[in-house]
Amino acid sequence: MIFPVRYGIQRIILRRAMSTVKHYDYLVIGGGSGGVASSRRAASYGAKTLLIEGKALGGTCVNVGCVPKKVMWYASDLATRVKQAHEYGLFEKFPLDDEHLQFNWEAFKKKRDAYIHRLNGIYATNLAKEGVDVLFGWAKFTGEGKVEVKTHDNKTEVFSADHILVATGGKPIVPEGIQGYEYGTDSDGFFALEHQPKKVVIVGAGYIGIEFAGVFHGLGSDTHLVIRGETVLRKFDTSIQETITDHYVNEGINVHKLSKVEKVERDEATKKLTVHLDTKEVINDVDSLIWTVGRRSLSGIGLENVGVKVDYRGQIVVDEYQNSSVNGIYSLGDVVGKVELTPVAIAAGRKLANRLFGPESCRNDKLDYKNVPSVIFSHPEAGSIGLTEKEAIEEYGHENIRIYNTKFTAMYYAMLKDKSPTRYKLICAGPEEKVVGLHIVGDSSAEILQGFGVAIKMGATKADFDNCVAIHPTSAEELVTLR
Amino acid sequence: MIFPVRYGIQRIILRRAMSTVKHYDYLVIGGGSGGVASSRRAASYGAKTLLIEGKALGGTCVNVGCVPKKVMWYASDLATRVKQAHEYGLFEKFPLDDEHLQFNWEAFKKKRDAYIHRLNGIYATNLAKEGVDVLFGWAKFTGEGKVEVKTHDNKTEVFSADHILVATGGKPIVPEGIQGYEYGTDSDGFFALEHQPKKVVIVGAGYIGIEFAGVFHGLGSDTHLVIRGETVLRKFDTSIQETITDHYVNEGINVHKLSKVEKVERDEATKKLTVHLDTKEVINDVDSLIWTVGRRSLSGIGLENVGVKVDYRGQIVVDEYQNSSVNGIYSLGDVVGKVELTPVAIAAGRKLANRLFGPESCRNDKLDYKNVPSVIFSHPEAGSIGLTEKEAIEEYGHENIRIYNTKFTAMYYAMLKDKSPTRYKLICAGPEEKVVGLHIVGDSSAEILQGFGVAIKMGATKADFDNCVAIHPTSAEELVTLR
Repeated sequence: MIFPVRYGIQRIILRRAMSTVKHYDYLVIGGGSGGVASSRRAASYGAKTLLIEGKALGGTCVNVGCVPKKVMWYASDLATRVKQAHEYGLFEKFPLDDEHLQFNWEAFKKKRDAYIHRLNGIYATNLAKEGVDVLFGWAKFTGEGKVEVKTHDNKTEVFSADHILVATGGKPIVPEGIQGYEYGTDSDGFFALEHQPKKVVIVGAGYIGIEFAGVFHGLGSDTHLVIRGETVLRKFDTSIQETITDHYVNEGINVHKLSKVEKVERDEATKKLTVHLDTKEVINDVDSLIWTVGRRSLSGIGLENVGVKVDYRGQIVVDEYQNSSVNGIYSLGDVVGKVELTPVAIAAGRKLANRLFGPESCRNDKLDYKNVPSVIFSHPEAGSIGLTEKEAIEEYGHENIRIYNTKFTAMYYAMLKDKSPTRYKLICAGPEEKVVGLHIVGDSSAEILQGFGVAIKMGATKADFDNCVAIHPTSAEELVTLR
Repeated sequence: MIFPVRYGIQRIILRRAMSTVKHYDYLVIGGGSGGVASSRRAASYGAKTLLIEGKALGGTCVNVGCVPKKVMWYASDLATRVKQAHEYGLFEKFPLDDEHLQFNWEAFKKKRDAYIHRLNGIYATNLAKEGVDVLFGWAKFTGEGKVEVKTHDNKTEVFSADHILVATGGKPIVPEGIQGYEYGTDSDGFFALEHQPKKVVIVGAGYIGIEFAGVFHGLGSDTHLVIRGETVLRKFDTSIQETITDHYVNEGINVHKLSKVEKVERDEATKKLTVHLDTKEVINDVDSLIWTVGRRSLSGIGLENVGVKVDYRGQIVVDEYQNSSVNGIYSLGDVVGKVELTPVAIAAGRKLANRLFGPESCRNDKLDYKNVPSVIFSHPEAGSIGLTEKEAIEEYGHENIRIYNTKFTAMYYAMLKDKSPTRYKLICAGPEEKVVGLHIVGDSSAEILQGFGVAIKMGATKADFDNCVAIHPTSAEELVTLR
């Protein structure tokens, strides 16, 4: 099926299997964040563009990533807030406590799915508005550099294009070496869960596992987190690692540190799992086991047929302009694996389209991967830009950096017995105290970070931070009054 | 009573009435945000500093302003969130709706007061730590330029100082020309309310009235807002005016537009008020009437005795270095009335202390009052930096500005029937599209604005905004992807 567009109204034209090769200016394989953004931008410049997607528009982010994750985060966050109502003098007649916490996972999942489905539709509409042709099917490079697509209605179509973008994304890894690993699921499986597990084991200390653990715990599941080290989020600054690890433990998440899963067993009668750790600890009566142990590039589209170079991890090798090793073939997003974030893929996709099809002024457009902000929807949220303290010391030397730290209780928690932590770390380098790293934990961190990201990308110094008058009472104001 | 300090431990020395004049390097009249910040900073440089406060440390902000206001905002915000729980699949067994909304104002007020009291103590401790002497009493300039203090224990003490800061703050205005005005209270009175009014009338379209109206409505009071114009928040950009006005109306706040209060009557038996508007509308059965019609400078400290110049509004006239018309006497904060915000008073107070007592490098320290961010804790929040659209057109000409607008529903509301609006406006000037104004409405606006404030103060252009990769999924990311 192809969705051509006339004046924003989407028509569906059923095509017969064709032996002819159809030519496009731009052919994009993968309708995720990067592919959609790039094809829309290209079409906006008048490029005849085809987007090929095997599953659902929006890719990982919309279907099994950022979006449904954030929706679940909202539910979990709200559950926590509701339990705080009595301390705020609200709804005291009703027992809004842990014991009475109740979450209608089944109904809410349907609602969440319906929302995702609406978004899929919006993506289709937006592509249509820009005049991008969309074809649902699986693409493969042929030896001659053409792209053969097996469509969902089992036809085969063949395309050629001046420029081809591979933006096929990534997929979760499962640890196939572990006995019984198949009883667990992955992050895609998390979003398919029809019922809330009473007891859940999440394996992995990366941001996906940490986000899931926060969601489950907030919604009342008995939550176990199995991590190899002492702390979670090992790629982030120690301030984030420590604050989130300690808070998760304090909140009652069962964090199994310095642990690996050795074996998983399933009771076929009850379907319950038993998870054996290498510490000899055994976690019984587990309803769901979720592996969040990493992701890898998703391709299998015959890159070898055209000689596109991939590295030992299967990631497509590109230069700073997203050029692959083959002229006219480009790649970006998770399949490249440089910075696996939706907005990075979007920005890279737009820049590439600008460069290929945009005005002369965009001929050198490329994405700068430095100082990209990223956040974790843990409870509380955390966010990071630039270098960690360790990296800053390595790059500038201990004597050339200055660290500003603050730890405080946000005003919201002044009325509550249990506090959620706020911790900010600003890393400055050189005599001018240029900001080279910012690491924040606390409520609203994701929203707080964006503006500071603009400032840091502009080359902000500590003095620039201090030069802005504080906004009171907020948490963010602490970042402009650090001493 | 004076609280001198020895190594951070506070001792209270009861003094006899003295006829001697005690001399200080720095004498600060007013223990609000500006006075406290300035005296602490001065003492940190070794200046012998005395702070005189007539009521409670922390001034308007801590006692009858920002702090208790934000606490009430949290309560009201949480009430709204709890009512959204069912749509998030939470606590479906309990009727968490408008009808069953219940707020224990009495108990919560006690809790809030206790928090404020703790903060008063923290202020005292911090002053003590820095070695600032604190005297509770009412100060007055004598003809000879000395400061006479009538202490709370009814003694009189006299001080001289090299430098004297007047930071006495402001107070609410009540419309004494209106018959029955005295049946209403002001913003100080709002914080003294021991019981929640079932029906409340707030008069005034400024940010204080708008915040109170949001709090009362969220907590279930039948809320009436009487405003002279068509919209609230007239000093802010039209995008904020319109969005908040419309949302308040939609939410069920009774906004009486183009209306003035003509007369207030009280039924002595029931204590209920009747508020007559000049539109002939009558609001009956009113439990509380709150005037939020403006604030004025608070002094009455014998400025005339030393010749300190005040303007026709009673505001102390100062130059950009906070110098009053009299050598050695300075003023800042609400009594000056330039930008009546806590962080402005704090920043100005610190800069002044830096200039007077700090190192050589600070000799020219002064606060730049340009691009000071400010926020409104309405529901939803709003925030503003720089020029409104109208001001930008006046300053740069219509043809030289470019406006970027966006209006969207934040993801949180995707699961809810009733949406709260998000609306952002970015105003850029000149061919380089320098950001000269930013106006935002929506959840977390106060937290979002701070970082953008840093960037704008640094001279950010639209390209700088776009140059930062978005943080997904957030609301703030829309500010770096405006088209």
